[in-house]
This record gives sequence, structure tokens and C-alpha cells, in this order.
Amino acid sequence: MRELEERILKDGKVLPGGVLKVGSFLNHCIDTTLLAHMADEVASLYKDAGVTKILTIEASGIALAAAAGMAMGVPVVFAKKHRTTNVDGGVHTTIVHSFTHNEDYNVVVADDCMDESDNVLIIDDFLANGSALRGLIDLVTQAGASVAGVAVSVEKRFQSGGDEFRAKGIRVESLAMISAMTDDGQITFCS
Amino acid sequence: MRELEERILKDGKVLPGGVLKVGSFLNHCIDTTLLAHMADEVASLYKDAGVTKILTIEASGIALAAAAGMAMGVPVVFAKKHRTTNVDGGVHTTIVHSFTHNEDYNVVVADDCMDESDNVLIIDDFLANGSALRGLIDLVTQAGASVAGVAVSVEKRFQSGGDEFRAKGIRVESLAMISAMTDDGQITFCS
Repeated sequence: MRELEERILKDGKVLPGGVLKVGSFLNHCIDTTLLAHMADEVASLYKDAGVTKILTIEASGIALAAAAGMAMGVPVVFAKKHRTTNVDGGVHTTIVHSFTHNEDYNVVVADDCMDESDNVLIIDDFLANGSALRGLIDLVTQAGASVAGVAVSVEKRFQSGGDEFRAKGIRVESLAMISAMTDDGQITFCS
Repeated sequence: MRELEERILKDGKVLPGGVLKVGSFLNHCIDTTLLAHMADEVASLYKDAGVTKILTIEASGIALAAAAGMAMGVPVVFAKKHRTTNVDGGVHTTIVHSFTHNEDYNVVVADDCMDESDNVLIIDDFLANGSALRGLIDLVTQAGASVAGVAVSVEKRFQSGGDEFRAKGIRVESLAMISAMTDDGQITFCS
């Protein structure tokens, strides 16, 4: 999606350790005009896929998931990163490793949020190692639902997550797909 | 907002300790039709208030903030609950007490997200004791911006937060305002 790629080139910052900072427009401050266009793009990509529900993970995936859910007319579920008093009763749970914070955490969805009748589109902001998505796919599987596909804002194609899911036959759509980032700040997109 | 009140009566659950569970449609699973209507209501309430930016706090405030930001055509900032590697450089920070988890945490916004020119609408899902909103108002003040007002999905009017802010002259709009909840599940709204 050219608009997002151009914005990443203009306002994204490469930090040491291969971190791409997009907090000025995507996942801290949010340009809602860009967000609406991204949601429309996700809705267009998956318009014939029979999506019944969107699943994301708090916190950075929620804005795009909510916008895409409104554009597609389907409910959104966001998995929580630890069990709170606001999720009672039965839950599905999995463990996700955060490379950003270098720790494992529990990811939870209430078991009445998805069932066998659901065809779930999984949305997140970044796809790199695929740890969060692996957990979300596990939650969909536990619920007996099917995975319609994955949509992420930014895929770091030079890391292994995307290829792993595609090799399993899962459809993965990335609104911006980065082939290389250098420590001096150069960003190259897959053509 | 009658649609939200009726949904709370239909699908909300009162848990022991005065917790209102709305996870089946508002802050875990999200009914995006209802969400869009709530965002339109917030946009309508604040249409003449000169709002330039929306501020919320991860995670449960993000969906309504993003939807309202799209409806109003203004950017959204979501404050993060601890400093991460994705917020580098200067930040504003404050401390918020969570009654749900009974712990204090740091709440952070990058200092380039808001400035003196901003008139900020603060959005969250719940207003009870007002701890989160107090922190968000502190962040707006640190940035030198002004507070246009507050919009929350659900206010527990029988707790003190809302009155505290109104007494300070801050406009507070609640899409559903609960006057009383009983342990046997009765919910009464302010008329």
C-alpha cells in the first residue's frame, strides 16, 4: 500500500537493534485518515473471504482491527495479555514471547468470543518473528474456528514469521512489506 | 445514549465487588456497529468544541478513541502503560493506580504527540474513581495543551471521579451513566 510505504519512509525511524519506530503516525500517535485508508484496504483484500470476526491482541493492533471491523461489518475481539477480573468464566489461553520486552506473557480470550462457526481474520500492527500471530492462531484453533487469513500493517520480510505462516497455507497480507533495514536508517520495500 | 444503556441491561453482568462486565460487546469482544454509533455520538457532542486531538490509554480506550478520531477527522494518541523501546526520546509521564489490578503503573506519552496548540478530548471506556483520567489530564497539562473535555463509554456516577472533574470545570460526557448497581445484578441509569 503505497500511502503507508511513503509515510514510513517520511516519518519512520530505524532504531538500533532493528526496531522500526512508527509511533508518530501508526502505533502511539495515530493518523486516523491513514488508519481509515488502511482499514478500507484490509476490507477490500478480504471482501470475498467470508470473514465473520476479527481477532487482534492488545494494544497496538486494536486501532486497525476496530477500523477494519467497522469497514467490514464484523465484530472484533482483542486478546488480553494477562487474565484480569474482567474476563471471568471459561477462557482460551496461550503463551507469547515478546522480543521487544524479552519476556513471556499469557494471552487470553473468553471462550464465548469465538466458536466453530467463525472464520477469523487475524490483525496486528507488526509481523516479524511471528510470535504474537502464532499465539493468536493457537487461540482460534482452540475455539474450533478457522483462520481466514492474517493482515498486518508492517511485515519485516527479512524475519521468518511471514514465511512460516505462508508455508502452512495461511494467507498473509501486509500493507507494507520491508525487505531490508540498515542501521543508518535506510528502508527498502519488497517490490 | 439509549442504545448503549439497553445493551448494558441486556448483556452486561455485575460481578462481585462492583465490577460491571461488558466484555461481550464493549471491551473484549467489540460490536463494531454499536462502536460506530458511539463514535458518532461522541463526534456530535463535541462537534463545536474545537477538538484537535484525542488522547486515550491502552488498551480498552483505543477502539472508541480510534473510531471517534475517524469520525471527527483528528489524530489519536494512546498513552502507554510503561516505557517501551518504541517510545524513545522525550516523554511525559505520570503514575496511575489501577483498582482492577491494585497496582500503580507508569503512563507515558511521547512529548512530540501534543503541544500548546492542541485542544485535547480525553476518551476512556470507564469512569469510576477517575484515576486513569486524572493521569491523562496530567499528561495534557505537561504538554501545555488544553483539555476540551472527557468522553467515556460508561460512568459509574455513584463513584467520585466524574463529580471531581466537573467540579473543576471540565466537561464530562458519558454515553451511559449508571446511578446504582446491586450485587444481584440490578443496574439503574441516571434519568
